[in-house]
Amino acid sequence: MLEDAPSHRASHPEGRVGRRRTRTRQQLASAARTLIATRGISGLTIGDVTEAADIGHGSFYTYFDSKEALVDAVLKDSLQTLAALAITIVPEHEDPAVRAYVADRRFIGTVSQDHELARLLVHAHEGDHVFRAATLPYARAVLTPGLESGRFNVPDVDVTLLIGVGSLSAVIRAIVDGDAPPGADRAHAQSMLRLFGIADAEVDAISQLPFDT
Amino acid sequence: MLEDAPSHRASHPEGRVGRRRTRTRQQLASAARTLIATRGISGLTIGDVTEAADIGHGSFYTYFDSKEALVDAVLKDSLQTLAALAITIVPEHEDPAVRAYVADRRFIGTVSQDHELARLLVHAHEGDHVFRAATLPYARAVLTPGLESGRFNVPDVDVTLLIGVGSLSAVIRAIVDGDAPPGADRAHAQSMLRLFGIADAEVDAISQLPFDT
Repeated sequence: MLEDAPSHRASHPEGRVGRRRTRTRQQLASAARTLIATRGISGLTIGDVTEAADIGHGSFYTYFDSKEALVDAVLKDSLQTLAALAITIVPEHEDPAVRAYVADRRFIGTVSQDHELARLLVHAHEGDHVFRAATLPYARAVLTPGLESGRFNVPDVDVTLLIGVGSLSAVIRAIVDGDAPPGADRAHAQSMLRLFGIADAEVDAISQLPFDT
Repeated sequence: MLEDAPSHRASHPEGRVGRRRTRTRQQLASAARTLIATRGISGLTIGDVTEAADIGHGSFYTYFDSKEALVDAVLKDSLQTLAALAITIVPEHEDPAVRAYVADRRFIGTVSQDHELARLLVHAHEGDHVFRAATLPYARAVLTPGLESGRFNVPDVDVTLLIGVGSLSAVIRAIVDGDAPPGADRAHAQSMLRLFGIADAEVDAISQLPFDT
């Protein structure tokens, strides 16, 4: 399935060996992130990454299948961090529609303004696919409360999630490439509320609330 | 800009040299398509392609920057052909909403059932990006009549188009990977009508019309 659990550790066993393995993986990903920020992806070598992480060159493949898999992991971790932030720092508002609107705009804003991450998104081998897999659990966390309370209604939850993450990826990439109109974040968030079944008058009202105070 | 003109030839000069150039490019793309169908992408070499197209090996780079650019061109041409088909063979119905609904379902159906094209989509270096660039002009052709007649209304036309093509790419990829729920094409087309401002009762009515007769 496309979806991963929001926890980064869910796929690792809980024991000491599992924790050490997770830690080493994270050291490699963190070293790679720093190297990519300074030199770009094309100049990244596995030797540089293992050296910066102080890990034996030969053991790299215990953690990642290839340089591309490492880059994917860096991209995924970064996106998950920003998605978690976007859905947790929304102002305490009870309406799931307001929370969804704010989370969507914040996420588009932070990802598209993060030049390092934007570069990763463009240059990763399967940037869009990694993007969708990384963000889908967070999109679900935004959608579910509104569905459970009856505030949202959609033809199919899984397809709505695919539309949400697929369109986010397209809009962010267009912003990064300079191909999106001004206010694309706002128009995307408004469109998502319409997609979730919120009436236009309410969408207008929500998009006029002050959020950044 | 992300968008290309629907005509495949728009970027080539109109003269005799331009036409010959376009023809040679198409020969290379056509040869590549056949080779990919039989051997897959990873086994594809530039030498095989130029030999199959009966074109000097050395002149390949006059037409394409790399093997990846050739694969992108094959993917793009195939998607444009199917998109053109999807928007032209819809039954003669005056309602732009009906036409959009049918074109969307047909396109999802034909692309996801075309195993060769699906493989290209998954393995091309920037499959999702190529998909969006190839399909955007056709999505615009579907959206525009409804906007002009007042049948559709959207917060922002360009963002709506990005949502349309970005979500199409995500849904088709999920179908190809076996990750989409049954009826994903229907749910996507229903969601797009809602996004275009069509009331739910009408969306339901449209999705119950018989189209395949």
